[in-house]
Amino acid sequence: MTAPLKNDAFLRACLRQPTPHTPVWLMRQAGRYLAEYRETRARAGSFMGLATSPAFATEVTLQPLDRYALDAAILFSDILTVPDAMGLGLSFAQGEGPRFERPLRHEDDVARLAVPDMARLRYVFDAVRSIRQALDGRVPLIGFSGSPWTLGCYMVEGAGSDDYRLVKTMMYARPDLMHRILEINAEAVAQYLNAQIEAGAQAVMIFDSWGGVLADGAFQRFSLAYTRRVVERLHRQHDGQRIPCIVFTKGGGPWLDEIADLGADVVGLDWTVNLGEARRRVGDRVALQGNLDPNVLFAPPEVIEVQVREVLDRFGPPQRPDGRWDGHIFNLGHGISQFTPAEHVNTLVDTVHAHSRRLRQAA
Amino acid sequence: MTAPLKNDAFLRACLRQPTPHTPVWLMRQAGRYLAEYRETRARAGSFMGLATSPAFATEVTLQPLDRYALDAAILFSDILTVPDAMGLGLSFAQGEGPRFERPLRHEDDVARLAVPDMARLRYVFDAVRSIRQALDGRVPLIGFSGSPWTLGCYMVEGAGSDDYRLVKTMMYARPDLMHRILEINAEAVAQYLNAQIEAGAQAVMIFDSWGGVLADGAFQRFSLAYTRRVVERLHRQHDGQRIPCIVFTKGGGPWLDEIADLGADVVGLDWTVNLGEARRRVGDRVALQGNLDPNVLFAPPEVIEVQVREVLDRFGPPQRPDGRWDGHIFNLGHGISQFTPAEHVNTLVDTVHAHSRRLRQAA
Repeated sequence: MTAPLKNDAFLRACLRQPTPHTPVWLMRQAGRYLAEYRETRARAGSFMGLATSPAFATEVTLQPLDRYALDAAILFSDILTVPDAMGLGLSFAQGEGPRFERPLRHEDDVARLAVPDMARLRYVFDAVRSIRQALDGRVPLIGFSGSPWTLGCYMVEGAGSDDYRLVKTMMYARPDLMHRILEINAEAVAQYLNAQIEAGAQAVMIFDSWGGVLADGAFQRFSLAYTRRVVERLHRQHDGQRIPCIVFTKGGGPWLDEIADLGADVVGLDWTVNLGEARRRVGDRVALQGNLDPNVLFAPPEVIEVQVREVLDRFGPPQRPDGRWDGHIFNLGHGISQFTPAEHVNTLVDTVHAHSRRLRQAA
Repeated sequence: MTAPLKNDAFLRACLRQPTPHTPVWLMRQAGRYLAEYRETRARAGSFMGLATSPAFATEVTLQPLDRYALDAAILFSDILTVPDAMGLGLSFAQGEGPRFERPLRHEDDVARLAVPDMARLRYVFDAVRSIRQALDGRVPLIGFSGSPWTLGCYMVEGAGSDDYRLVKTMMYARPDLMHRILEINAEAVAQYLNAQIEAGAQAVMIFDSWGGVLADGAFQRFSLAYTRRVVERLHRQHDGQRIPCIVFTKGGGPWLDEIADLGADVVGLDWTVNLGEARRRVGDRVALQGNLDPNVLFAPPEVIEVQVREVLDRFGPPQRPDGRWDGHIFNLGHGISQFTPAEHVNTLVDTVHAHSRRLRQAA
């Protein structure tokens, strides 16, 4: 039905298998820094117009692959599709972030919340199918979702926040309400990711973008515990293939050991973490993904080369002295900035490939 | 000349000496959550009117001490007084954060930058003298400054930022310019803190509020190295007393070991760090300050009690099995929110005192 995969370096690195080079993709690689993306978005009329149309989503998902030698594609979508399907009313005002019309503020709001009918998210699964077809086996396709906690932050705050006052007030003052939201989110996210896998996603990533704002103790109870529930419910095999699962907690450095024990195949790291130390800490539990500061891409190409090599050198040659392989997937430690000069991404991708081949030869 | 200190628990804990209870103070304890502060600020006309008047600064510094049994006072001022004295033109627009009229964007801006004449900051040193007199030995007075890197962020960005794009672009693309700014800042901050000590500050704190946004590697070169320069130049003895130095890096958890080796007496921690693990990691190098999530103060008093006890329990009884003492100063992991119900702070302070006395008895 679907074409065999021509480049499986990403999937192999996720599973800690040998690869000829370090695979690379970039969070938000289909995005505003690309002129062709801005052109498609203008045609779509709005961000939601773009995200809810399988044809447009396919078009923008493939755009960065035509420019750069990336080793994976990631579904073009938004992490807030799930709460939108729960009836919270997602909108994107011009020049502002996402906003929910009906955030969860009162006990009644929480009581009414339920796992949405996945049929409401059919546009996402249709996009996955359409992208797989368009990819024609070039590289694997990653599906994704926000984590239960990260979705919960937006659902209570109603928008982005700089202090998370509303959601943390609910968490500390009414943990029963917060746990109910998170239980529903965990079930919804598991169903959502499984439906993406069913539709053709070859790996899935859980973005715990706001896990890092929690206190030690609260992180384990309100973020990690529910991410674990999702991971446990995922269909990790599909069509005879292992479906790797990546968990990325922005600011999760302090809890790396616990995150590595979640049951995921890959842990994403932001740039505050030393990749060499992280590799030693996680041992053979998981592969690692990351972790260049996206702001490096504002520097001239010669500086980008040096910084990319530094990240690869810190991880070191992926094959260990005992012959087994550790996995590294090169990525940024956060989404690529809309202000990034698009030609700088060529330098990044080409340096990852060239230098990681050299590292393998030298080892 | 000045009255003898009636409560030296804070200074003793900084120096890892025995104390009958765990001392407590709160970052931004003199602030907008207090009705009496808002009243004084209204009289002062503006934030800068408040900060530049020794009489007003004295009044607001003492306000929280009249309400709560706090163990230290902290100079009321702003971290951006130093770049303002460098001629960058600080202003606070209503409802917005600080802004510089003349940020450092070009090579020429950086070339012109110089360590300011400390006479321009006399209002700060006058405030320190006036507060010491008004305190009359009730509790010690903490002086403070932003770290060279944190000041540099504001000086290049010209305001707060959510991605630090401008300052990181300069750092990666023109590290020579960034290093020049940081060298000047380090010298200015050292002179500024020494003048506060000369005027009567009994401890000093360096706020590296934005150190945590840096990548591993960049943190060491652009933040830690310059904080170290400041610490090395501080006058740690004054009037026969040891002047403890506290370094607080928001988001600094990944680099706790390196920060503990800076030469400071105390390391401040945000709430993402497990205080018990941090105590084991730093050993007898430094005392620790922190680390309650300020959002806990939005919960009802019974929840605040539980959360405060949890922080104290994680640190554990400060006296070790070998008889020596480790130091813990209770604080929030960030400044107190302007939305905090003022009466909730009583619960926090009283629980710290009562529970830490119980912990000492039980040990």
